[in-house]
Amino acid sequence: MRMYDIIANKKNGKELTKEEIEFFIKGYVAGEIPDYQVSALMMAICFQKMSYEETLNLTLAMAHSGDILDLSSIHGIKVDKHSTGGVGDKTSLVLGPLVAAAGVKMAKMSGRGLGHTGGTIDKLESFTGFSTNLTEQQFLENINRIGFALTGQTANLAPADKKLYALRDVTATVDNLSLIASSIMSKKLAAGADVIVLDVKTGSGAFMKKEEDAFQLAKEMAAIGNGAGRKVVAIVSDMDQPLGYAVGNAIEVKEAIATLNGNGPKDLTELCLTLGAHILHLSGIAENENEARLRLLELIENRKALDKLAEFVEAQGGDANQVYHPELLPTASITMEVPATMTGYIFHIQSDEIGISATILGGGREQKEDILDLSVGIYLRKKVGDAVSQGDAIATIYANDLKKANEAMKRIQNAYTYSTEEVACQKFIKGIVS
Amino acid sequence: MRMYDIIANKKNGKELTKEEIEFFIKGYVAGEIPDYQVSALMMAICFQKMSYEETLNLTLAMAHSGDILDLSSIHGIKVDKHSTGGVGDKTSLVLGPLVAAAGVKMAKMSGRGLGHTGGTIDKLESFTGFSTNLTEQQFLENINRIGFALTGQTANLAPADKKLYALRDVTATVDNLSLIASSIMSKKLAAGADVIVLDVKTGSGAFMKKEEDAFQLAKEMAAIGNGAGRKVVAIVSDMDQPLGYAVGNAIEVKEAIATLNGNGPKDLTELCLTLGAHILHLSGIAENENEARLRLLELIENRKALDKLAEFVEAQGGDANQVYHPELLPTASITMEVPATMTGYIFHIQSDEIGISATILGGGREQKEDILDLSVGIYLRKKVGDAVSQGDAIATIYANDLKKANEAMKRIQNAYTYSTEEVACQKFIKGIVS
Repeated sequence: MRMYDIIANKKNGKELTKEEIEFFIKGYVAGEIPDYQVSALMMAICFQKMSYEETLNLTLAMAHSGDILDLSSIHGIKVDKHSTGGVGDKTSLVLGPLVAAAGVKMAKMSGRGLGHTGGTIDKLESFTGFSTNLTEQQFLENINRIGFALTGQTANLAPADKKLYALRDVTATVDNLSLIASSIMSKKLAAGADVIVLDVKTGSGAFMKKEEDAFQLAKEMAAIGNGAGRKVVAIVSDMDQPLGYAVGNAIEVKEAIATLNGNGPKDLTELCLTLGAHILHLSGIAENENEARLRLLELIENRKALDKLAEFVEAQGGDANQVYHPELLPTASITMEVPATMTGYIFHIQSDEIGISATILGGGREQKEDILDLSVGIYLRKKVGDAVSQGDAIATIYANDLKKANEAMKRIQNAYTYSTEEVACQKFIKGIVS
Repeated sequence: MRMYDIIANKKNGKELTKEEIEFFIKGYVAGEIPDYQVSALMMAICFQKMSYEETLNLTLAMAHSGDILDLSSIHGIKVDKHSTGGVGDKTSLVLGPLVAAAGVKMAKMSGRGLGHTGGTIDKLESFTGFSTNLTEQQFLENINRIGFALTGQTANLAPADKKLYALRDVTATVDNLSLIASSIMSKKLAAGADVIVLDVKTGSGAFMKKEEDAFQLAKEMAAIGNGAGRKVVAIVSDMDQPLGYAVGNAIEVKEAIATLNGNGPKDLTELCLTLGAHILHLSGIAENENEARLRLLELIENRKALDKLAEFVEAQGGDANQVYHPELLPTASITMEVPATMTGYIFHIQSDEIGISATILGGGREQKEDILDLSVGIYLRKKVGDAVSQGDAIATIYANDLKKANEAMKRIQNAYTYSTEEVACQKFIKGIVS
């Protein structure tokens, strides 16, 4: 078998065989097939696309290119959740404790933030002492005992995906749905869960700008998961504006705590209940989604979900007291209101600009090595559809540096656009694919 | 400017600007742009194609990526000729002396053979002492004095093309007409001639299998040459079977000498007269092609073209006596007839198989380092349309190794296919593009 022929076959529109795909992935990871042949193949795939069989085979080959996590010591059905990413996305902070309180076992791997989107690990480090440096055994024990644990991604999970993604990133070959789906799913399959819940965002603040593309991606991922013998559900939701009101680190933790107290933003609460209901149903804990939803609402009502967050934080070395006293979480020294530049209705909020503003304040990374200021952030006072008068506060900036705060202020003002007419609200949950 | 954006632009179907093309070629030659980005761009070009402007700009950028040959010390109009290559192609050996005898100045760069096609330099080394290691000054002086000189390609002529071609060769991105055209033309432009005559082959033994593609390539190359201010003509001719009867090195030189003596194969003679007539016309030596053709026939008739070959061979250190006594050229020890396997008409001769058979005998290279046996070769006794009876000699093998001869015999027999019905002869000159 020669890589040349594999490239030529795909270029000529032929379907690659399982053997060809495995040959190329193994050879690439082993360093036997050079980058320049792989990038040519990736470009050919962007034009000729991949069939379902090819996509599944590529995903499986990448999932098996490194370690496969062994979750067999966890009792019962193991659940994993993945979000395609967005601004203000603190879903995992709410969802993990919520479903764990209902008896779910959730083994979650997370990353740190880069660019305009934040990372769950950074956010959780707002709790004094919190750490994701768990040994594999601690990780598994915590899940068995508490129902939820969170760790950073181990180095050797789907190394083929890591190498391939880095190459696609510099050769303009990222935007193929099958390649995106197999990249995400290879890591999820290697992470070993039985149930995989996918939080697919769509809109200007998401990777998938068009709703149609988001559904297509959701379908591809669900099909791959099912093809690999996992239970999968994908929820497509709106990311045309940030999720909830808080964007930053400690500030997002506070909003997550508020949500677990029953006082969360409507969109975030709805997303967590929808995702959670599907998790309970697929895990066999609830008969159907309606029953599951009522159970989850009860766990918020009786504060058992909040207690679960405290338990989880403590088990990973964090100060659980801060769960009940979020005012003890890091707080910035400067508070600055962002005034509306005109009177009208909020027409649109450019999410990535809000994310970049948080990064400018010091709450996000421009480079991998950047050290974060967990106390800074942005709280949106007005969201799409809200009526404002010129000068009203549309957002509050929490900062520790006046110059940065002023820079963020301008950026936030530019991120908002207005309409003189009433703005219809978008449907938040766009659909469910399984 | 970023290479990433250039790849993305081409992928999205945008026309690349002159600046983008120059940026990428300069960066690639300088080693600043990596192979993996360039191969992705090449693949995108295979799908999105290039416009005439892009192709011209790419050709010019590659032509200027290294040295440009300065032919200004040659008096009059300078002519270059290029063949897209085929089996038994000894055209340059005939054409060079023929047009030089008419007063043309031809500055020819040639290569050595690789794979199933031979190289003009190898063939000429059949003359004892012949060398292409001329200094640039000797090369120019010889052209001024004799009208024809031949040298190996200098290392730094269009280095961008050399690097790009090597990459395309291993990434399945060779078969794009604009890339092929610009690869050939970049070297021709750098070689500095005013008039460029292109010998484009089509058929099973050619790079361009389909006549339509050959014409398209001819048109692209002519347009590039004209766009760069050169006079160009391209002759599309048949390579569905080998050109002439002789395939090898000394054996092809003998056939070229026979042609200059007026006893050449019909197809080879016709091709040389057609190419030569256009050269004379474009050089301003003849009023029109008819007049030019009569002049060339006269130069064959009165042996002035043959004398020119002798003069050229001597000027490059070769034994001119062998021109008049071709029996003194290298001769193989074994002669073996290849019998027809059935009675009928020759339907087809698979040219590349004949070329490979010559290579097996030792007359061609499988690897760059291989040392050739110039005495071996194949003489085709029957060509397409000829009637044969089973057992008739269809070809004669000249070899120095019985085992190799037997291997070649089988291969040659398999290269011939037969028909029980009469076979119509193909038109040899398919057309002329300028």
